[in-house]
Amino acid sequence: MTLMTSWVESANSPDTDFPLNNLPYGVFSTNSLEPRCGVAIGDMILDMAALEEAELVTLWDEPVFDVPYWNDVMDLGPDTWEALRARLIELLSTDAPDQATVAPHLVPMGDARLHMPMVVSEYTDFYAGKHHATNVGTMFRGAENALPPNWLHIPIGYNGRASTVVVSGTDIHRPNGQLKAPDAEKPGFGPCKRLDIELEMGAIVGTSTEMGQPVTVAEADEMIFGYVLLNDWSARDIQAWEYQPLGPFQAKAFATSISPWIVTRAALEPFRTSTPEREKDLLPYLKEPGPMLYDIDLAVIIEPEGGAQEVIARTNYNEMYYSAAQQLTHHASSGCAMNAGDLLGSGTISGPEKDQRGSLLELSWGGKEPLTLQDGSERSFLEDGDTMILTGHAQGYGFKIGFGACAGKILAAIPYP
Amino acid sequence: MTLMTSWVESANSPDTDFPLNNLPYGVFSTNSLEPRCGVAIGDMILDMAALEEAELVTLWDEPVFDVPYWNDVMDLGPDTWEALRARLIELLSTDAPDQATVAPHLVPMGDARLHMPMVVSEYTDFYAGKHHATNVGTMFRGAENALPPNWLHIPIGYNGRASTVVVSGTDIHRPNGQLKAPDAEKPGFGPCKRLDIELEMGAIVGTSTEMGQPVTVAEADEMIFGYVLLNDWSARDIQAWEYQPLGPFQAKAFATSISPWIVTRAALEPFRTSTPEREKDLLPYLKEPGPMLYDIDLAVIIEPEGGAQEVIARTNYNEMYYSAAQQLTHHASSGCAMNAGDLLGSGTISGPEKDQRGSLLELSWGGKEPLTLQDGSERSFLEDGDTMILTGHAQGYGFKIGFGACAGKILAAIPYP
Repeated sequence: MTLMTSWVESANSPDTDFPLNNLPYGVFSTNSLEPRCGVAIGDMILDMAALEEAELVTLWDEPVFDVPYWNDVMDLGPDTWEALRARLIELLSTDAPDQATVAPHLVPMGDARLHMPMVVSEYTDFYAGKHHATNVGTMFRGAENALPPNWLHIPIGYNGRASTVVVSGTDIHRPNGQLKAPDAEKPGFGPCKRLDIELEMGAIVGTSTEMGQPVTVAEADEMIFGYVLLNDWSARDIQAWEYQPLGPFQAKAFATSISPWIVTRAALEPFRTSTPEREKDLLPYLKEPGPMLYDIDLAVIIEPEGGAQEVIARTNYNEMYYSAAQQLTHHASSGCAMNAGDLLGSGTISGPEKDQRGSLLELSWGGKEPLTLQDGSERSFLEDGDTMILTGHAQGYGFKIGFGACAGKILAAIPYP
Repeated sequence: MTLMTSWVESANSPDTDFPLNNLPYGVFSTNSLEPRCGVAIGDMILDMAALEEAELVTLWDEPVFDVPYWNDVMDLGPDTWEALRARLIELLSTDAPDQATVAPHLVPMGDARLHMPMVVSEYTDFYAGKHHATNVGTMFRGAENALPPNWLHIPIGYNGRASTVVVSGTDIHRPNGQLKAPDAEKPGFGPCKRLDIELEMGAIVGTSTEMGQPVTVAEADEMIFGYVLLNDWSARDIQAWEYQPLGPFQAKAFATSISPWIVTRAALEPFRTSTPEREKDLLPYLKEPGPMLYDIDLAVIIEPEGGAQEVIARTNYNEMYYSAAQQLTHHASSGCAMNAGDLLGSGTISGPEKDQRGSLLELSWGGKEPLTLQDGSERSFLEDGDTMILTGHAQGYGFKIGFGACAGKILAAIPYP
């Protein structure tokens, strides 16, 4: 697939995250505009609320873009999503007749503040990267028992906390919690000492299901509204002490960051790729009717306080063992109702090589092999002042489908009452 | 504390769940009324939307009772909750001057359909009953390792699924899922064979906190809007195969039932009681400044298809090792934002005796000691057609603070696509 050109000149650069091929959905505000729906195009944002008011885009009897979330658009269903994308392409392509009427509704991205693109209904995090699960399992249970017996059969997931999903750029306080060193007699309470990232993709469910209603993998794929980058901040020491027998809780509850732009399934369509060959045959309900992953290059960048940005890992979303569609099918398999705005974290994405690992836990091998940064400092886990940045894009011929950054800076723990 | 008498005669019976002392909050509809907020009094429901329209109760500039949830009232804060209760007592007590103006807004409970009393923001389930944790631990890990090492230090919890929390009376389809017998080579997919209940109380958070904001146990107690009975339906066979290493997921996601009336903290105030003596000293952040549990008698009733109701267990909420206030404090301790409408399940409530156990898993000891019902049939786990009913009340002198029933009937599994 090649670049689709736009009369918005900055959208035609091979370096922009947001060519006409992309058209991702976000929420923005400016000094004079309240938070509202917008579409990224080059270095501009199309003000969808203004476009709707000018009757240049009409999806529904009532306005759906003058609110700080895309959930209302999700509720209109896949046919409307498709119609919206077609209309946006029509308005923004090089030969668009409406250029003069649309141009006044473009806002420079530099003037805008970005917000959460949707109301997160519920957040579920999966554990579907085989390299990650193998690395973590090897560290905690030894190489012999690295993968739990269910891993090759179930896209393992757990419910996360939606109330602390925040948009890129939100500062993250180091969490407090119960900590217990393996040789300590009893736990203490204080700031986490092993604060980590998890490089993930987030799939956003756009179509709701009823309680009791299962969905096939093909149906699940069509239910997905789009994807974001996701950093599942993790307190490894809190997790180690709390997680048996019911899983991670406060170790993950303090924050999850996402990139601000929802990249639609339609934009990613040319980059579909298959999950790897199955090591054990999957149960029929999880079998994929076609390629359900995407070829998306990912990077993890660290920026120490006052220092330079430095890439510490590169990997690809195509490393996942299970796709978001498989995860969603499994999620609904018991009869669990799904809602528009549900966010599904892919699980940490690591490649087979050491510099392809999506967490510091793996990069520093549990703290035994600290990274040395360009400024000479070492990192096993995060320091206060570190900014962590995830980036990602699918590479077309002469264009990128980019996600924008998913960044967060670590601040000191809040003193406990 | 003695009975507060009302001019609604049925509220003065020692057998009603809903005397003037109680005044629990629900949502109801009738053939002619859309779902709206109501208050139970004897065998009647006070139509709060009508009362507000008649200006007999005014909490805010805008109406808050003409909606099918109490979340708007929660958002007004504890002072308003107190003022509302005082006003309701004023309107309904025996010597109320407004009897003639209020009476037309009473709806017979028999004419009403009850709905979910609130929008569940997020649902968290705990594991805070020591008898239950010991029983389950003994079955799965042996008596030596029954309690996990963290159990006496942490009110262990995990995030549940809010989208399938349903009101009493909602039928529950037996879930499908991945099942694997211990000696089977690989898993299969089909209807759960070990379907269970969990007798719990649910605490409803009424006050929101910001991300990063911890709360003391005393503050947490004041944040609680009220309590309901809660049945955390559980698929034991799905759970056994899926839960390592990240906890229960589809085994719990298909349904959670709650009783329809939110019994306020104020109504339960006379029944406060303390958590048991600590076996290990708690960390300071979890220490209670006073009694935070309640003396609430609980029962589990089974009604087989076409059969009679039969009590199979009796216990009390005062058997919990951790209170809801401690659970909420722990929940927020990492900086996790809490929201009005968050539902916290207590964990299964079992007493020390065999007939005080709050799950069939414990009552039948993993299926090894099936219960024999009055009709001669045996139960290790639930059969299709079984209706399970939880009841609970605090016993005053000549009155009860009751919760109404938390009931659900098991229907056959939905055929999988």
